Order: sequence, then C-alpha cells, then structure tokens
Amino acid sequence: MFLYLIVVGLLSCDGQMLVKDKNPDFILVIHGGAGTILKENMTDEKEQQYEAKLREALKAGSKILKNGGSSLDAVTETICVLEDSPLFNAGKGAVFTAEGVNEMDASIMDGSDLNAGAVTGVRSIKNPIRAARAVMENSPHVLLSGAGADTFALQQGLTIVEPEYFFTKRRWESYQKVKAKKEQGEKHGTVGAVALDMQGNLAAATSTGGMTYKMKGRVGDSPIIGAGTYADNNTCAVSATGHGEFFMRNVVAYDISALMKYKGLSLTDAADEVIQKKLKAIGGDGGIIAVDKDGNFTMTFNTAGMYRGFISSEGEMEVLIFK
Amino acid sequence: MFLYLIVVGLLSCDGQMLVKDKNPDFILVIHGGAGTILKENMTDEKEQQYEAKLREALKAGSKILKNGGSSLDAVTETICVLEDSPLFNAGKGAVFTAEGVNEMDASIMDGSDLNAGAVTGVRSIKNPIRAARAVMENSPHVLLSGAGADTFALQQGLTIVEPEYFFTKRRWESYQKVKAKKEQGEKHGTVGAVALDMQGNLAAATSTGGMTYKMKGRVGDSPIIGAGTYADNNTCAVSATGHGEFFMRNVVAYDISALMKYKGLSLTDAADEVIQKKLKAIGGDGGIIAVDKDGNFTMTFNTAGMYRGFISSEGEMEVLIFK
Repeated sequence: MFLYLIVVGLLSCDGQMLVKDKNPDFILVIHGGAGTILKENMTDEKEQQYEAKLREALKAGSKILKNGGSSLDAVTETICVLEDSPLFNAGKGAVFTAEGVNEMDASIMDGSDLNAGAVTGVRSIKNPIRAARAVMENSPHVLLSGAGADTFALQQGLTIVEPEYFFTKRRWESYQKVKAKKEQGEKHGTVGAVALDMQGNLAAATSTGGMTYKMKGRVGDSPIIGAGTYADNNTCAVSATGHGEFFMRNVVAYDISALMKYKGLSLTDAADEVIQKKLKAIGGDGGIIAVDKDGNFTMTFNTAGMYRGFISSEGEMEVLIFK
Repeated sequence: MFLYLIVVGLLSCDGQMLVKDKNPDFILVIHGGAGTILKENMTDEKEQQYEAKLREALKAGSKILKNGGSSLDAVTETICVLEDSPLFNAGKGAVFTAEGVNEMDASIMDGSDLNAGAVTGVRSIKNPIRAARAVMENSPHVLLSGAGADTFALQQGLTIVEPEYFFTKRRWESYQKVKAKKEQGEKHGTVGAVALDMQGNLAAATSTGGMTYKMKGRVGDSPIIGAGTYADNNTCAVSATGHGEFFMRNVVAYDISALMKYKGLSLTDAADEVIQKKLKAIGGDGGIIAVDKDGNFTMTFNTAGMYRGFISSEGEMEVLIFK
C-alpha cells in the first residue's frame, strides 16, 4: 500500500471512475448534495465559491490521510469544513423546518468494526457530525434523537451554539417562500464524505439540515445506518444524498454493499443498479458517493447535478458540480 | 392459492419450520420479545398468561386474513392486541426511560410497494403501531420522531392517552431496580408480527418501549426500516427483537431479504446466517420472525427464549416461549 503507484483514472460525464490500473494508498470522496443544480441557474461567482469550499474540504481530509491518519478522522474533519460553510444544507447552512427552526441529522460509520453513531433533530450542536462520532465512541448507542442528543453533546464537551448561529439569509428566504407556497421546499443539500486510509480502513459520514419546511420530527435517511450511511471494510463506504424517504425504503447505502458482497458486483455496477435503475424507476431523486476496499470510487446521481469531488494519494484532485 | 392445501410442518427446537410440503393460503407469525426467558424463572400462571395473549393476538390477525383481508391490516391489529397488554414491552406495558417516562417506537412496512412508516420516542399514543401506519399512509414521510410524531397522531384522530395509562407496577419496579443499579436494564420485549395474505402480499410490523432506563432520545432498531422491520413481496417480511444497536449496525431485517434476493438463500438459511452466525459472533442477542412469499416461515433466536407463535390458513396454531 505504501508503494507509489500511479492511478490512471478517467471520469465519465456522471463522475464515475471508469479505468483504474493501480490502487491508491488513500482516497477521499465528498458530496455537497444532489438536486436540480443547473449551470444556467448558477453565477460564475457562486460556482467558484462552491468549488473552492469543496477543495478546502478535500484538502482538510487528505492532509490527515497523507499523514497516516484514519479514514474516520478524515471524513469527520472533511464534513466539519462543509458544516461550517453557509453554502451547504448542513450545520451553519441548515435549512429551516416548518416551525422556523433548524433541526439537523448526522451519522458516521467505521468500516473496520461496523461501529456507528448518529444524531437526529439536534438544534444546538455546531458540528452535528462530531456528535454522531461521540455517540459511536462514547455511548453504548447508535442513534440519539432531539433534546437527548443535544444534552449528550453538551456533556461530551462539544461546541454548542445559540440558534442564531444557524441563521443564514438565503435559507430564511427559502423558508419564507415555501411558507407562502411560492415554491417547493429544497429536498437536497446534504453533505457527505467517504474515505479509504493507508491502513485499508473505510469510513463514511453524512450530515444534513433535512428538507426546507419539513414537518416537526421528520427524520430522513442521513442519520439512518444502512440508508444514508454505511461502511464495511469488506465491501465499501457509502454516503447518500437525495429524497430521503426513497433512500430509507430502499435501504440504499447497505444495498450497494449487499450487491457487492452477495452478488459479486463491482462498486460501480452496484451503485448504478441502485441509483440509476432501482431509485430512478420510482422517482427517487438523488445520488451517492462511495469508495471500495481497493480504492475504486463512484459519484453517481440521477439528478441534474451533484456537488462532488475526490482527492487521492497520487495528488489527483477534482471537483465537479454538473453532469 | 385458494385450494385447500395441507401444510405439513415440523418445528425444530428453535421453532423453525423444517418440512413444508404445501403452501398455506395465509400465515401470520408473531413475537413478544427475545431474551433470558427461562422456564425456571417463570410461574405456570405467568406462562399461561403469555400463551393466552399470544393466542389472542394470533386469532385477531388470522380472522382478518381468513376473511380475505390484507397482511397490513392483520399485522396492525395483531400488534394492537400485544400493545394493549401489560405483559409485553410495547404500548401499555412499555418500560421506563432514565427520566421515568415511557417513550415508544414502532414501524410497519408493506411488501407490495415498499411503502413504510415509523415513529420514535412517542409518549401519548395508545397504539404506536397505528401512528406508524398513519405516517406511511397519510404523510409523505417514513419516520417521525418525538413531539412531532405525537402531534401528527393527534391530528390523525388516533387515540391519545395520559402518561398514567402506560404505568404498570412491574415496569416501574424494574425501573427502580435499574436506577438503584441493582440489576441490568431489560433490553428486550419488543413485539412484532409478519404475515402473508391470500393476495400474496407480505407485511411486517414491530413495536417497542425500548430498553429500561434508556438514555433520553435513544432510538433502537424497532423504528428503523431495514434494521427492525422489512417487507418485500419478492423475498420476505421480517420483524426483529433484541439488542437494538447490533441490529442497526448489521441492518438485520434487510440483510435477510438481501441474502435471499442476491445469494439465493432460503428464508431459513438467510435468517440463520444473520441471527445464529453473524450476530451471535459479536454478542448481538435477539431473534427474528419472518415469512417468505411462499408461506415458509422461521422464528429463530440466539437467546434463551422468545415469546412466539404462528397460525396458518390450515388452522394450525402454535405458541412457544422457551428453546
């Protein structure tokens, strides 16, 4: 794994790696949400902002991987960069619920031992992904919800912020428009990261603010192990984004792993089977990023666009937004 | 399906159907929780109470199936009988959280269209399984949590009760003992039902009070589609009971379906692979009930006992508690 191998990768229009001759020592893949993201609706300035933030997140995670750090640390710190940005629907940039508050979900999974942690409906934690990780590492539980999760995060010494921290003009205006029934609520914008480290360990993490104007208490796929997030060193690490209910009913993240494990499909074939066939057939909008135990990866989606990118031990880095 | 076929079934010591020559028109299988349920700790009176209630639940569900009703209705009404009894850790008999309140979870899934609904952390709904079904049928969501779920149930016209309704002396004493650190909290006692109806549709439902003295906001596997509950007409319907965190990390209910779908395993082999091998190897206590599209069923567990039973269109009915 420590040999300096050369990765030869070609990206297809939907961002999948088609040809890869050698395995990278490490790889990190991220997404910032899939949806009706069209070039014609995007200013150059906005596009540059997104690309810069995706690059910053990739660099934060890859620095850890390059120094021999764990995939778990890499996905955690990568997600924190995205959570701290107002651009994405997670952490700082979380959308508003029907009640005009921010309720966030996050989850993380360690492919080396199938340990996992998640929180749902948290309101005060600056970085929900750190709370998910604390649930995994410092509690006997997998999923904590609502005030119980906020209290746990406080007890764990995580950074707690006032509700005002999560106020962003853009999300508030979006909330007001949905409230006035002037437009559909945003269903997308979740952030995610998957990584393979130099020890061969896989990890996956996902964080979201959910849907604009979502019903009080609505839980989507992001905090659900097997739906929005899954990692197993024997197969792959997956983070999903899209219309959560479809991803929950189809157990999307674990289904990709199961297709590899039980049916012998490659990562790309397994991901395409789930995202481009199964979900597309029933109107389940969204996409996933995934990396397998050999460092192959895919970033596949059935929507107009998905904020996404990857960086490998070979120094390759690419960020993409549209199809 | 309407022919009067004869089911020849032999039950092994762990309650699995080993030989079955013909397919039943319908079948209903239930559980009332798995755990350290030992004959020597049970009075004859208590054993009779459990057996009588399991039979009552089976009769309520099978009456619906016999009249050509849906598996969805059958599992709903079956679960309601168990939720209304103080014997099981669901509804009326729900255990107490660390804060001394009752927070319940439930989920339901329709194998004909992979639709699903669930609630977690509800406090005021007499029959949480009806709330899960309302989420499935009357909301665009799959999972609602906490006060949002209670409010939704009220709006749906479901029966709402005062907190006192869920008080039972037995569960309160158990709570006090755990609080005084005199004993371990009960991790088990969930109820579940799976059914195949005369139209060939599968359904699964699960309901629980969770773990005694559970941390505020702790969500187990019962409300998680793919972990505690799963149904797909192409494979099987599954309801799980046990140490929830292990069932979530291993995506137990969906994994059984995936082993059938992708690896071609029989229902019994798939269930044994997950419960007796995978989970047993990592100390994941518990069991599942499941029925496949042909009416084969299994009730397998890796604990000392599991309250369980089945009834088929052939008039066969059996309830079991110990190994």
